[in-house]
Amino acid sequence: MRPSGREVGQIRPVTFTRHFTAHAEGSVLVEFGNTKVICTATVEEGVPRFLKGKGQGWVTAEYGMLPRATHTRNRREAASGKQGGRTMEIQRLIARSLRAAIDLTALGDHTITVDCDVIQADGGTRTASITGASVALADALNTMVADGKLDKNPMKGHVAAVSVGIFEGTPVCDLEYLEDSAAETDMNVVMLEDGRMIEVQGTAEGEPFTQEELTAMLALAKQGIDDIVVAQKASLAD
Amino acid sequence: MRPSGREVGQIRPVTFTRHFTAHAEGSVLVEFGNTKVICTATVEEGVPRFLKGKGQGWVTAEYGMLPRATHTRNRREAASGKQGGRTMEIQRLIARSLRAAIDLTALGDHTITVDCDVIQADGGTRTASITGASVALADALNTMVADGKLDKNPMKGHVAAVSVGIFEGTPVCDLEYLEDSAAETDMNVVMLEDGRMIEVQGTAEGEPFTQEELTAMLALAKQGIDDIVVAQKASLAD
Amino acid sequence: MRPSGREVGQIRPVTFTRHFTAHAEGSVLVEFGNTKVICTATVEEGVPRFLKGKGQGWVTAEYGMLPRATHTRNRREAASGKQGGRTMEIQRLIARSLRAAIDLTALGDHTITVDCDVIQADGGTRTASITGASVALADALNTMVADGKLDKNPMKGHVAAVSVGIFEGTPVCDLEYLEDSAAETDMNVVMLEDGRMIEVQGTAEGEPFTQEELTAMLALAKQGIDDIVVAQKASLAD
Amino acid sequence: MRPSGREVGQIRPVTFTRHFTAHAEGSVLVEFGNTKVICTATVEEGVPRFLKGKGQGWVTAEYGMLPRATHTRNRREAASGKQGGRTMEIQRLIARSLRAAIDLTALGDHTITVDCDVIQADGGTRTASITGASVALADALNTMVADGKLDKNPMKGHVAAVSVGIFEGTPVCDLEYLEDSAAETDMNVVMLEDGRMIEVQGTAEGEPFTQEELTAMLALAKQGIDDIVVAQKASLAD
Amino acid sequence: MRPSGREVGQIRPVTFTRHFTAHAEGSVLVEFGNTKVICTATVEEGVPRFLKGKGQGWVTAEYGMLPRATHTRNRREAASGKQGGRTMEIQRLIARSLRAAIDLTALGDHTITVDCDVIQADGGTRTASITGASVALADALNTMVADGKLDKNPMKGHVAAVSVGIFEGTPVCDLEYLEDSAAETDMNVVMLEDGRMIEVQGTAEGEPFTQEELTAMLALAKQGIDDIVVAQKASLAD
Amino acid sequence: MRPSGREVGQIRPVTFTRHFTAHAEGSVLVEFGNTKVICTATVEEGVPRFLKGKGQGWVTAEYGMLPRATHTRNRREAASGKQGGRTMEIQRLIARSLRAAIDLTALGDHTITVDCDVIQADGGTRTASITGASVALADALNTMVADGKLDKNPMKGHVAAVSVGIFEGTPVCDLEYLEDSAAETDMNVVMLEDGRMIEVQGTAEGEPFTQEELTAMLALAKQGIDDIVVAQKASLAD
Repeated sequence: MRPSGREVGQIRPVTFTRHFTAHAEGSVLVEFGNTKVICTATVEEGVPRFLKGKGQGWVTAEYGMLPRATHTRNRREAASGKQGGRTMEIQRLIARSLRAAIDLTALGDHTITVDCDVIQADGGTRTASITGASVALADALNTMVADGKLDKNPMKGHVAAVSVGIFEGTPVCDLEYLEDSAAETDMNVVMLEDGRMIEVQGTAEGEPFTQEELTAMLALAKQGIDDIVVAQKASLAD
Repeated sequence: MRPSGREVGQIRPVTFTRHFTAHAEGSVLVEFGNTKVICTATVEEGVPRFLKGKGQGWVTAEYGMLPRATHTRNRREAASGKQGGRTMEIQRLIARSLRAAIDLTALGDHTITVDCDVIQADGGTRTASITGASVALADALNTMVADGKLDKNPMKGHVAAVSVGIFEGTPVCDLEYLEDSAAETDMNVVMLEDGRMIEVQGTAEGEPFTQEELTAMLALAKQGIDDIVVAQKASLAD
Repeated sequence: MRPSGREVGQIRPVTFTRHFTAHAEGSVLVEFGNTKVICTATVEEGVPRFLKGKGQGWVTAEYGMLPRATHTRNRREAASGKQGGRTMEIQRLIARSLRAAIDLTALGDHTITVDCDVIQADGGTRTASITGASVALADALNTMVADGKLDKNPMKGHVAAVSVGIFEGTPVCDLEYLEDSAAETDMNVVMLEDGRMIEVQGTAEGEPFTQEELTAMLALAKQGIDDIVVAQKASLAD
Repeated sequence: MRPSGREVGQIRPVTFTRHFTAHAEGSVLVEFGNTKVICTATVEEGVPRFLKGKGQGWVTAEYGMLPRATHTRNRREAASGKQGGRTMEIQRLIARSLRAAIDLTALGDHTITVDCDVIQADGGTRTASITGASVALADALNTMVADGKLDKNPMKGHVAAVSVGIFEGTPVCDLEYLEDSAAETDMNVVMLEDGRMIEVQGTAEGEPFTQEELTAMLALAKQGIDDIVVAQKASLAD
Repeated sequence: MRPSGREVGQIRPVTFTRHFTAHAEGSVLVEFGNTKVICTATVEEGVPRFLKGKGQGWVTAEYGMLPRATHTRNRREAASGKQGGRTMEIQRLIARSLRAAIDLTALGDHTITVDCDVIQADGGTRTASITGASVALADALNTMVADGKLDKNPMKGHVAAVSVGIFEGTPVCDLEYLEDSAAETDMNVVMLEDGRMIEVQGTAEGEPFTQEELTAMLALAKQGIDDIVVAQKASLAD
Repeated sequence: MRPSGREVGQIRPVTFTRHFTAHAEGSVLVEFGNTKVICTATVEEGVPRFLKGKGQGWVTAEYGMLPRATHTRNRREAASGKQGGRTMEIQRLIARSLRAAIDLTALGDHTITVDCDVIQADGGTRTASITGASVALADALNTMVADGKLDKNPMKGHVAAVSVGIFEGTPVCDLEYLEDSAAETDMNVVMLEDGRMIEVQGTAEGEPFTQEELTAMLALAKQGIDDIVVAQKASLAD
């Protein structure tokens, strides 16, 4: 029934290429099928002004998309002079998701900036970004521990995200572009590896959705995220 | 237990002042306790370029906050030269919520722009905006029917929104600022009057939340929204 | 002869609603007939960089208009990315007018920012803004005295402003939109309560004007401002 | 008494160098003593969108200042990404002044853009700009008549402007920087050559001013403008 | 002598990964050692306004760098609201270089936009961009021929570019970051495959350079470009 | 053969008017035939942040063009909200050229900003800017020596620049607009007075150019620059 022939709860192949670029403290190419995102984590000394003297670190995120990551070319945001509302919304979501998974007090006087740049888009770029960013962040934090900048890694666990939605009347997990653009409801779920929720964002694109549909989608999301966390752990064990 | 002495499921007094300003096709001052938002709906001929020839209308929204709507003054966005990420995120939410409640095909070649401007903030400005915008939109659409521009009002029902959250371990409904700034989890729920969901956005501010907590919050939201819809209907019946 | 039936020197009903919003040190809704402006005064510690160490305080102002304050919707300045020339011109006028009425040395190391936001426009928004801002400023300064931040209120007197113009050949006072858009000459006059002038800005919209016409307009302005100052004093006496 | 030794009503030497640059339809270097402004008038076919089909032409103006036209270098507005409030205010004044002196209906389907760029500032740049722009505009319009684009020059007369102010208690005409920066009151007056007023903008920098002071300043302005118009006419007669 | 042990005229390993991303008409990952750039060519119908009706097509280019492509993180240009001078300069160079290698008249009513996005930087990003863009452009044009949009490929030949410079007194070819940052003179050379020059940009970073040094650098550039063109041809022959 | 009747190696009359404006430490009007540029050098205490504590000064440059310096009016960059790519490219070239001619360490804790503003354009504005800026810089530095701010002038020699190109198949020096707009190849050469090169930028506008053509153009440039340096020295000797 799904364009790809996948089962309703089956996620696309998820791969992580760590150390994808050379300079960043953490650098991961994450792929969810044909969706590909470069996630880099940069560690810098100090914190933003509003946190000075509060005894905690900070994690922030920026999101971008190469102009031709999509079927038709989008205008480059640097050229148009501002980031669009969709970009703003996504990068705020990524940052909140990562912060919820980290003990900021234990991070000390450091700021970590995670850049998620989509080089090829086929649906689910924001959830792929969060998922890859979690691995890049883990690499960066482990480096800080190895360098003696931190006593121990302040992550509470891996963070993973997946989209779920109602496609042709049926709840499905990890929508690719063909499904995403036709879905009646679209929901992004971010969880800690223990299954607790960090973010839930469900949107009715056409008809409103019911409590039952919400419950069904959350169950699919839980299952997909469990599979993703396995892949995250395997990648970091290499 | 709540700073205001309210019950966990009790919303603040909600009032709508229709025809609040003179020029707009729909103009409503909505108050959720001390949160006050002016919502105006403007009807214009034509649709945005990307919809030309597609046989449907459009609803969009913009959100703003007077610089001193808050405890300390925020910089005016017009002076800083751009809308912040929070503003972008909120106005996209308002617009999606309203579009999900309307038959855009029946709207014909018209664009309705809803402006939500917060003049006093005490928590829940985005949910108050959606709730007030629904009334302003109804007024504008009824005017269009009265003027012969539409055969009938294309709304599927009233749209109402409320925030719920976990405050000091307990799920509560309609958080005011004191609660909002201390909540462990914050969720905004937008429903059609029949109880189906249009948007659900839950965010863990501190610890991740569980499925049980999500279910409890949704139940409170449903109850609060039922109360709000009663107020919307009473206001429009005047 | 006037659209409203008013006498040539008769101003519209002027009302001030003090404490209109909750957070600002001074907050006034001023109404000149159907023109309605929210004026808030915010007190902050410190002065702008160019005044550091000069032993004086500062008063500045910003002006805005809700998009649908007018007959047709204007584009939101925050969305277009800059304040227009008219906005700039008006907020500079408001700020100069208020500064001329205050002993900045006696203000000490404080900056007061006055925001004037038009929620409904029917001509004379800049003069209404100045007039309302004067009351909001007085409230803020009196609060500072009460809080022990100042020994005494450093205002030299109330500031009031009114527009005068030549409408269908006759000088009239306090033009509403219908008159304003048809006037041959438009003049804004700002006075201290003792009748001395702070700003005079006269503009020939069509034909140039003569010294005699200028004198007639100034006389009408003096009379209108006297009436406005009475209302200001009554409001502050409440 | 004046720093320059001038009489209270004596203007600085005013000169016009016509055809100062080669490409513009009108190009004038105007000098008021050490204040030097390049004024060019550019004629283009068509009118702005808001005037299409209304049977009239348009005159607009832009004002700029080279970064080191002043004692200390000012940031280049093109580099800072926006025109400041002062620039906006001045260019709106120049444009209004020129439009008030021309029969826009007789201008036909043409737009004239006048650029006033200050290369050296010593007080009175806005009044010098208007005065020089009037000559550049006359040259451009005469060229249009010569080219058969217009039947006759649609100017109602020359436009001239001068600043007056109260310096050390005495009203003086055409303030240079030393006077301007110390003046208690500063007024810019724009007149048609027949002495009727196009713009009057008086500002109390320190103490408010009285009706008598206003009258004295206007008389000085009238006298100064008469002298300037003589120079304008002589220049155009060359 | 060189940090990498390369001969003075020896270029780094150059590789091209064609069809690197899925959506673009031409998509190439080019690597010059550790410098890695994604080059995509997008074909669109129509030409910019200034070329309408002139009977020719257009080629333009945009350049970007991921924030952490470099040793320390650079601010994202989309977030800072404008492209920097260096970016502007480079993308203008890329576009001119490509246009000089193509018969724009034979391109017909098409615009090709080439995006060069640096994902890892180690010196020579602009010359790598031009070199990779040439291959992406060839792919896009060959696709247009295959699709019947063009009769034949309008490229005059391959375009390749390399940097040369004077490092520790010796002219060397294809500088990596360690050399580039210490070079006394830096020159970028762009040639058509027949050895004729399209762009030569030499800059003295420290001491000015002589005619002899210029000649030596050009000879090295010619040799390096010959090697690069061989690699381009081999890649396209796959 | 040339439109002006000049010999192939003959430059236009070059003149320098020193002390052109009153306030700048160095101010020069440079004319290359009908190309006229105001170059001012401003001396300020301190250095940009990235140089703090490095024991050297800084020289930077900004370039602008009055809107009607050209045949048709260009939009004012301050009004459009950003500097274009061409402006950026030119001002970076000017700044690099000047820095290459000065011992920045000997400049001490000073920043010199050179503004080059084109008031009339007829080809070669960037080379005229560099040439005039060199004289303005010399004046500013000599003033600093006279004022005791520097022990001696830190310039290594005069900097001069000229454009050369291939016009109708023949290499020519110092192209005016008519030649520039038709040239097959355009090259800008910046030299120190001893003939060593600071910048060489050659661009094929139509066909690529050969090594022989490059050599011929460089020879013409050397000859033209020798003539220009004579004029620079004569001007400074006045």
